[in-house]
Amino acid sequence: MQNTREKILLAHGSGGRLSADLIKNIFIKSFDNPVLRKQTDSAFLELPSNRIAFTTDSYVVDPIFFPGGDIGKLAVCGTVNDLAVSGALPMYISASFIIEEGLLISDLERIVSSMAEEAKNAGVKIVTGDTKVVDKGKCDKVFINTAGVGVFNDGVSDLGIGENIKAGDKIIVNGTIADHGMAILTLRNELDVQNSIESDCACLSPVIQKLIKSKLDIKFMRDATRGGIAAVLHEWAEACGEAMWIEESKIPLSPSSRGICEMLGLDPLFIANEGTFVAAVAPDRCDQAMKVLSSFTETNQAAVVGIVRPRNMSPVVVQRTIGVDQPLDEPIGAMLPRIC
Amino acid sequence: MQNTREKILLAHGSGGRLSADLIKNIFIKSFDNPVLRKQTDSAFLELPSNRIAFTTDSYVVDPIFFPGGDIGKLAVCGTVNDLAVSGALPMYISASFIIEEGLLISDLERIVSSMAEEAKNAGVKIVTGDTKVVDKGKCDKVFINTAGVGVFNDGVSDLGIGENIKAGDKIIVNGTIADHGMAILTLRNELDVQNSIESDCACLSPVIQKLIKSKLDIKFMRDATRGGIAAVLHEWAEACGEAMWIEESKIPLSPSSRGICEMLGLDPLFIANEGTFVAAVAPDRCDQAMKVLSSFTETNQAAVVGIVRPRNMSPVVVQRTIGVDQPLDEPIGAMLPRIC
Repeated sequence: MQNTREKILLAHGSGGRLSADLIKNIFIKSFDNPVLRKQTDSAFLELPSNRIAFTTDSYVVDPIFFPGGDIGKLAVCGTVNDLAVSGALPMYISASFIIEEGLLISDLERIVSSMAEEAKNAGVKIVTGDTKVVDKGKCDKVFINTAGVGVFNDGVSDLGIGENIKAGDKIIVNGTIADHGMAILTLRNELDVQNSIESDCACLSPVIQKLIKSKLDIKFMRDATRGGIAAVLHEWAEACGEAMWIEESKIPLSPSSRGICEMLGLDPLFIANEGTFVAAVAPDRCDQAMKVLSSFTETNQAAVVGIVRPRNMSPVVVQRTIGVDQPLDEPIGAMLPRIC
Repeated sequence: MQNTREKILLAHGSGGRLSADLIKNIFIKSFDNPVLRKQTDSAFLELPSNRIAFTTDSYVVDPIFFPGGDIGKLAVCGTVNDLAVSGALPMYISASFIIEEGLLISDLERIVSSMAEEAKNAGVKIVTGDTKVVDKGKCDKVFINTAGVGVFNDGVSDLGIGENIKAGDKIIVNGTIADHGMAILTLRNELDVQNSIESDCACLSPVIQKLIKSKLDIKFMRDATRGGIAAVLHEWAEACGEAMWIEESKIPLSPSSRGICEMLGLDPLFIANEGTFVAAVAPDRCDQAMKVLSSFTETNQAAVVGIVRPRNMSPVVVQRTIGVDQPLDEPIGAMLPRIC
């Protein structure tokens, strides 16, 4: 692995000596921890609780490196965030790679070290994994799957159940939206943007754990990835039967993302995020929740963007900046494929 | 989903309405269980124990349908087997799909129903998942990742630790070897074989659970997938420092697999299996273990194939049918890529 021009061969995925070398020199070297070091097919774990959250996502983002992150960072953050928004404390993740023959080993090393760094930030350990190599032209550079296990501490319940939302609950977003989708879009289309847009890709578990520990009566929490804020609000409306009403002017948006969205006629509410969550909070605890969010640098642009109202006609309504209430469509298809 | 000629579109992976329809009409319909039905990003699980096994594998087998199975059955069996050989009771698995745009929806349905059936056989529930769609030519039909969670019952310890193996332990194989690799090889190369070879793809958890419950002092157990029996024996030799000695004449082999191996000059010890495990058992418990194995139809061809001996020169030695002891090489690369 000395030469940066060395490439992944089919034999690296064969289960023989070359596979073992790859695992030892790249994966175990970066992800090192006592469980992984045993190199058993299954990781043996003793959890602090038997109430767990279990999730998985595959990542196929194109390009694999982008401003603010790469496919490896994304694969760790995405799965950690799915656990975190459920109310669980993320603890362990798996990492499974499907690699196209010919990928530069130096690119793989860069991705793996970015995963290791992000896992450290998020306080999770990468304890098991897998590597497959497919012939050139049968995948696109590298796809990564991560699965995750988190535990629910005593007294914490599953935050992923929509029926708890009630009319009157406030809707909070933790920061500027649409940055991940816009970062990928500008990069992929080589748009000439004055200030490059950085993806919001980040692990949300520290701030979410703080919210949970503050016992703020959070009703529901969801990370707004594919389909953007719009997909989350529609999901909530379907789950609780009420209407989600938001004010466009309250939605945090960076000047660059706003500029690109206006230029291309895109609605940022539909654009994917990778470090953004939406929370429904009981109205009397909203100020406290905002106080917690403003105490973290990453979420000091958090905003109360709307309220849950009794359903009239539309499940999701936006008060546009011109002052008119408009129904917000449910996202149907992809605004942009392969953003995660 | 009425028309068998309907195809997967990029929008099916977008997180919008088409994704939701696919999840509801195909995945939830087949995998149906109370946890999955909640459609939360993370599955909430209450486990009977906090000592767990956690594992993952991605499956990229080509072709996706083969005699004895398909990529879906393989994805369930592979992960269930990784949990089972560790000594854990497999309970929950995730299923994450990377689909090439244009895949026939009827093919996906066939794969998914095969996964559902195999999960039922193995007594596991598919509780969380993910779907990504990539543009045509950026993957090969469909890749599936499964991760799994199993629990260790009281008194059962991790069977995936090689240091427990001692000189004198017997080496058992649960049935005919090389069938999976030979099935894929004959299919992919359109070899004209009189009797088509069926993959051994199967879930091993029922028989392994029975072995564990019989308290047979099993030292180590491993499913022999990529790299075949040879890879497992080398791994054990490295872990315990002793030598693995096996007799070629004792290795169960179907006439068809033997025929193809002889014709092509392949050593079946290096060929991949998907329903084969190797176990090291204390010598005084070997007969009892064989009795348990012979009580299951799937493992009534099980055989004691060798013994652990103090290391002399080679870590793995085979007594060939001609009566000579030969060192067995460690598998270096792929005999055949994409067999799982």
